[in-house]
Amino acid sequence: MADHTYSISEIVGTSTEGVDAAVRNGIAAASKTLRNLDWFEVKEVRGHISDGGVADWQVTIKIGFRLER
Amino acid sequence: MADHTYSISEIVGTSTEGVDAAVRNGIAAASKTLRNLDWFEVKEVRGHISDGGVADWQVTIKIGFRLER
Amino acid sequence: MADHTYSISEIVGTSTEGVDAAVRNGIAAASKTLRNLDWFEVKEVRGHISDGGVADWQVTIKIGFRLER
Amino acid sequence: MADHTYSISEIVGTSTEGVDAAVRNGIAAASKTLRNLDWFEVKEVRGHISDGGVADWQVTIKIGFRLER
Amino acid sequence: MADHTYSISEIVGTSTEGVDAAVRNGIAAASKTLRNLDWFEVKEVRGHISDGGVADWQVTIKIGFRLER
Amino acid sequence: MADHTYSISEIVGTSTEGVDAAVRNGIAAASKTLRNLDWFEVKEVRGHISDGGVADWQVTIKIGFRLER
Amino acid sequence: MADHTYSISEIVGTSTEGVDAAVRNGIAAASKTLRNLDWFEVKEVRGHISDGGVADWQVTIKIGFRLER
Amino acid sequence: MADHTYSISEIVGTSTEGVDAAVRNGIAAASKTLRNLDWFEVKEVRGHISDGGVADWQVTIKIGFRLER
Amino acid sequence: MADHTYSISEIVGTSTEGVDAAVRNGIAAASKTLRNLDWFEVKEVRGHISDGGVADWQVTIKIGFRLER
Amino acid sequence: MADHTYSISEIVGTSTEGVDAAVRNGIAAASKTLRNLDWFEVKEVRGHISDGGVADWQVTIKIGFRLER
Amino acid sequence: MADHTYSISEIVGTSTEGVDAAVRNGIAAASKTLRNLDWFEVKEVRGHISDGGVADWQVTIKIGFRLER
Amino acid sequence: MADHTYSISEIVGTSTEGVDAAVRNGIAAASKTLRNLDWFEVKEVRGHISDGGVADWQVTIKIGFRLER
Repeated sequence: MADHTYSISEIVGTSTEGVDAAVRNGIAAASKTLRNLDWFEVKEVRGHISDGGVADWQVTIKIGFRLER
Repeated sequence: MADHTYSISEIVGTSTEGVDAAVRNGIAAASKTLRNLDWFEVKEVRGHISDGGVADWQVTIKIGFRLER
Repeated sequence: MADHTYSISEIVGTSTEGVDAAVRNGIAAASKTLRNLDWFEVKEVRGHISDGGVADWQVTIKIGFRLER
Repeated sequence: MADHTYSISEIVGTSTEGVDAAVRNGIAAASKTLRNLDWFEVKEVRGHISDGGVADWQVTIKIGFRLER
Repeated sequence: MADHTYSISEIVGTSTEGVDAAVRNGIAAASKTLRNLDWFEVKEVRGHISDGGVADWQVTIKIGFRLER
Repeated sequence: MADHTYSISEIVGTSTEGVDAAVRNGIAAASKTLRNLDWFEVKEVRGHISDGGVADWQVTIKIGFRLER
Repeated sequence: MADHTYSISEIVGTSTEGVDAAVRNGIAAASKTLRNLDWFEVKEVRGHISDGGVADWQVTIKIGFRLER
Repeated sequence: MADHTYSISEIVGTSTEGVDAAVRNGIAAASKTLRNLDWFEVKEVRGHISDGGVADWQVTIKIGFRLER
Repeated sequence: MADHTYSISEIVGTSTEGVDAAVRNGIAAASKTLRNLDWFEVKEVRGHISDGGVADWQVTIKIGFRLER
Repeated sequence: MADHTYSISEIVGTSTEGVDAAVRNGIAAASKTLRNLDWFEVKEVRGHISDGGVADWQVTIKIGFRLER
Repeated sequence: MADHTYSISEIVGTSTEGVDAAVRNGIAAASKTLRNLDWFEVKEVRGHISDGGVADWQVTIKIGFRLER
Repeated sequence: MADHTYSISEIVGTSTEGVDAAVRNGIAAASKTLRNLDWFEVKEVRGHISDGGVADWQVTIKIGFRLER
């Protein structure tokens, strides 16, 4: 059986809803241009504040995808 | 245009609901005493356990706010 | 008053719903075999991707529990 | 029950005696101006050397205290 | 000569006296249930504050012990 | 001789010139409200990009200052 | 489909041959007492020196295994 | 308002002048092939030495840019 | 002499043999699509376990390559 | 006024008494061969265990000393 | 071709001018006693504050130099 | 029994073969000038790439050796 290789891309997904939605948005956007997405890791959670509340959530994720031969 | 300066405050927001709510609670509490809140970063997620479930969520965030001149 | 000792166990809770649910599932599973669970800390958030979406959330947590004498 | 919020302050306590005394001195000093001190975490231990011995111990601690509403 | 294997356990020792005593208490407690304890590493020093002083010291240590065959 | 205590404040200095100027600006701004500033440590260097160049430099520093008794 | 839970155990495998062999030895030893071993992560590579050469390799790994229900 | 997504690229800018120039060179080079560059973060500063002086500065930066839809 | 710029790509090479082979496989795969590969850094070593042994080695590496002008 | 340069040496002090004594022992030993010792930083606290107690404390410190011209 | 070995020395260069000059000063001082200096890495940037401004910059660097055989 | 002191030296061993050989080469080189070598820790694994393959492995290790009195 052949040895696979994976590439890792770093993406910031955003959302006004929360952490989970920001991750989902980032993965959905990445899946438009990358194929064979396999896993993700959350690296950082940040966001903007306005009017005493969270204006947006910015979640940095690393996405691993299998390279085709 | 003048150079801005920001100060960073470290806050622990808590909630019985989850991570997002704990962040929102911490920012809402900070906005009562600090002005010009601009961004936040999540540094740590912890909590207490009781009766085999999550009793509360404690999310440590750093909050950046613009200093006035 | 006597000095307590705690032990820390590392668990990966999973869920198809999101970060909060994965933490709750991990704690619920740990509470079946460990007693006196006291606190948790989130160490890592990862997951699998399939069909351009999150297939599951895997949240690594450390769980502290009091040792009985 | 209401959700509490905590603030975290970073302090460097010093002592000529050792690590424990430097932590105690830092907390004693902080308690003069902050109320509801709840917990501390040691972040760094440093010090000056003179005449081939420790001249002082400088222990950086984070101190968490509950914000009043 | 055979290759040994070690297991690492994470423990929080506590004390009202200081860092050294908390480490000693954690190791003493661990030695009641684990055999062949070999080394420890301090990972974190925390504690509670009450009345402007240290109420207890909580020292997280990793303890390595040799597995028997 | 008495034991001193220091407090640490986290500041983001900014500049359109470069890293050194952003640090100097942050310290100058902090010195308007804090007394007995003693040392600084650079924690993070970031900035905005516009028109293919650096629009501003944002340098996060920790500033230590001696507490008066 | 049900949500799985995993536990993580920290092990130090040793060998006189090299890094790979120390990992394999640690996993072989762990598999004698743990079931459903699923993945490992290398956390630290150390060793003893004697007579100007490597006397043994000590590789700390985390091993994840699925908890049975 | 729609949720934006950002991608992060890691670049090493170099210069014989200093840290600031190396960052500027890296961003200038990246702006030739990437659009919508938004922010940067400095991750590492290294360089070569020759004849007892700095031969070049190598500054690793992460560059965030907005993905177009 | 002109200032060079480098880009850094993150790759996971895999192998059933060991750490070295996984690194070599990742670099060989990356060299099929990237030019001017210059250096690598190992960031993480993981793998799957099956039947009490290592099923595969997954080594995450960063690869630096010179950008052409 | 001229610019000073400092060198940093890494030392492991040991003691059967505790953390403070191990630091003092390491500094005392270093002062026998190095001059102008100026400051220290604690990097790691470890030790051996025997008979269910701490056999020795091993404290890794960095020691800074001013280079003479 | 023979395998080279390098040694790494940790130095704190200082300057009243800025980060770049402190690095250059540290390397110039190290080159007086060490030969075959090859590369440097910046590990920490600190400094003293006086009169609301930067009194000196202290930049900790690691310097790699080739060992002669 | 007297308290021992250890010094830690940082070395980069290189090899065209792999990680293990680079560590062995570094330790062999260090043993020519240092006495009482006791242990090592791997801190970083890097290398150069040429012709789509690994040109050399560079492994940074810390080496601990006992100081004689």
